[in-house]
Amino acid sequence: MALIVQKYGGTSVGSPERIEAVAERVQRWHAQGNDIVVVVSAMSGETNRLIGLAKAITPDPDPRELDVMVSTGEQVTIALLAMALMKRGVAAKSYTGAQVAIRTDSSFGKARIESIDDARMRADLAQRKVIIVAGFQGADDDGNITTLGRGGSDTTGVALAAALKADECQIYTDVDGVYTTDPRVVPQARRLETITFEEMLEMASLGSKVLQIRSVEFAGKYNVPLRVLSSFGEGGGTLITVDTEEDMEKPVISGIAFNRDEAKLIVRGVPDTPGIASRILGPIGDANIEVDMIVQNVSADGTTDFTFTVARGDMKKALSVLEKVAQDVSAREIISDDKITKVSLVGVGMRSHAGVASKMFAVLAKENINIQMISTSEIKISVVVDEKYLELAVRALHTAFDLDAPSA
Amino acid sequence: MALIVQKYGGTSVGSPERIEAVAERVQRWHAQGNDIVVVVSAMSGETNRLIGLAKAITPDPDPRELDVMVSTGEQVTIALLAMALMKRGVAAKSYTGAQVAIRTDSSFGKARIESIDDARMRADLAQRKVIIVAGFQGADDDGNITTLGRGGSDTTGVALAAALKADECQIYTDVDGVYTTDPRVVPQARRLETITFEEMLEMASLGSKVLQIRSVEFAGKYNVPLRVLSSFGEGGGTLITVDTEEDMEKPVISGIAFNRDEAKLIVRGVPDTPGIASRILGPIGDANIEVDMIVQNVSADGTTDFTFTVARGDMKKALSVLEKVAQDVSAREIISDDKITKVSLVGVGMRSHAGVASKMFAVLAKENINIQMISTSEIKISVVVDEKYLELAVRALHTAFDLDAPSA
Repeated sequence: MALIVQKYGGTSVGSPERIEAVAERVQRWHAQGNDIVVVVSAMSGETNRLIGLAKAITPDPDPRELDVMVSTGEQVTIALLAMALMKRGVAAKSYTGAQVAIRTDSSFGKARIESIDDARMRADLAQRKVIIVAGFQGADDDGNITTLGRGGSDTTGVALAAALKADECQIYTDVDGVYTTDPRVVPQARRLETITFEEMLEMASLGSKVLQIRSVEFAGKYNVPLRVLSSFGEGGGTLITVDTEEDMEKPVISGIAFNRDEAKLIVRGVPDTPGIASRILGPIGDANIEVDMIVQNVSADGTTDFTFTVARGDMKKALSVLEKVAQDVSAREIISDDKITKVSLVGVGMRSHAGVASKMFAVLAKENINIQMISTSEIKISVVVDEKYLELAVRALHTAFDLDAPSA
Repeated sequence: MALIVQKYGGTSVGSPERIEAVAERVQRWHAQGNDIVVVVSAMSGETNRLIGLAKAITPDPDPRELDVMVSTGEQVTIALLAMALMKRGVAAKSYTGAQVAIRTDSSFGKARIESIDDARMRADLAQRKVIIVAGFQGADDDGNITTLGRGGSDTTGVALAAALKADECQIYTDVDGVYTTDPRVVPQARRLETITFEEMLEMASLGSKVLQIRSVEFAGKYNVPLRVLSSFGEGGGTLITVDTEEDMEKPVISGIAFNRDEAKLIVRGVPDTPGIASRILGPIGDANIEVDMIVQNVSADGTTDFTFTVARGDMKKALSVLEKVAQDVSAREIISDDKITKVSLVGVGMRSHAGVASKMFAVLAKENINIQMISTSEIKISVVVDEKYLELAVRALHTAFDLDAPSA
């Protein structure tokens, strides 16, 4: 007997039939004696339909009114799931974010949860009712409806689990867990039984889009055991846990992430003087361009090369900013390249294991893959290589770091 | 400068283009210095779409959950209209029923309004904001979402007008007012400038489905001037007012209503004893069949004929009930007829004018139309005739009672 929060995404509740399947699963968990709180998203396509209606009125809809409208998507789903459970003889009750009550600040469209009142839920759970809460939404102090932004249903699930001190928060999605790397690139990729919050954050931000980053941060902060699993299959998924540092079996590397959506910009031959980095990156930030990796080589002749990466879609904009900056910082030339990819090894194990970086570089060298940039953090090593080497690099590293599934 | 509540139905807000048209109209009234509160229905088709989703889950959805779902229809419209107004530079703010706050009892699907808190609205109006309220919905004392039942947006409009002591409640619909009779039957039918609440109630219940009866009762009770007008044209519509009894110009008859959806049942040769009516109608009521007209002829040979009408769809069910009752009350025979129609003259003027009934009968006699049943109230005379005479009867009466529009 446990208190479990389950979150189902838009695809999992995309049709009446799929909602029935969710109801069946919830019923099964409930029948085992567990107390269940379910968080649901809008039926897939619904949020886009609603936004389309708004855009038909105005390209720039008022954020408060957009939230009033978009929040109806989840409101429909909670009612349908409650009906499906009651049909099965399971007592159930739905709540909108405002009703539950999930209090947020007033940042319409990207609100942050401030508090959750668990009194109603506790009373319902005591009566063995399944509680169904609309994800992605809340209300501010004045009762205005707010939304947490896209993907915010994960955050709702984790926040409810934290408020209720749930035993587990299960995020049901269309993948059956977190993998050592993308199985489309490496067929031998394995599902991880567990992964730490820190590793998950690195994996997520590097392109493994299983969970919303914010919800992982939230779960880590409030120590909510988070499990990612498939709403279509029966596997155990991947449990995201705190790093106990006691697990001696912990492998050095948990997974390999990569990101094709990168472009590289090099500002060559700038004077190696204090403040040069901010004079280059300041205007980039002012233009609302997010910078990912930043590398500055050691100075040789009193000048240095300053390199950074941005999302590919931002490369042109970044170039035009740099052209103005180039004169200002007396740069020799500006070089750009959008035929690159970033490959990262992620693992809390590397904290205590020397030699991960050198092994990585050796593996890539053996395959004749030239490394263009290197950047490291405590639990991650990232390299930038020519994008044509992506598959080769990821597969070679996956094998070298013992991540391949045992062959059958 | 006045405080005006405007209500727009589903057809009037059926597409983004139509919502723009509503916004334009609201802007015009607002620019004239009026304070405006707008009540909107769901976009046409939306409520049925939502109910269809529920029915795909279960034929018998939980009423509370159905309200949670169905109420989203209006919630979408309020946001879209607010956006459309803001685009035009008109300050606007939307409220769901729960937010405004419209307090109802807990009869999900057919809730009754108990109170309306006008504090928020007053504050917004003081800032010259247009207030947009979701029709058809409210919340009970526990914050559960309730709906007022189909067509309930009219009731919301009238209730808000009453709470705010508005100068006028305007119901925008797809007809441009209340007519002396159905223009499809009588091309010379005229739009009425005014009609009394009592007349409107008789006209509405007799088949002129312009306004929800409940909203007219409500408006009458709280003395809210109610105006029906077209959301597509520019006419002044029809003002529904209290009967001042001072209007000497008031015509005897305001309009002619008719109802094709009637079937007649005759219980022949029952003993003319006290209690016979209830022994016949009791079982009909128990079977949830609504009875409209009831006529009992004067006894001749100690037995009498008892006649009543029901909706056509209920005739078969009523017959099977009567077959059992027939033995119990020793009736000679049961006769049914669904080829009938009811035609009614309505007008507060007939209170003080004798001879309306005899004139009506004479007009019908002149056309060789046989009257099967007669029933009268203070402001209405209804007759049942063979349905093949419907058009002939209505046209003859329309002309005879000076209702025809002056020919151009």
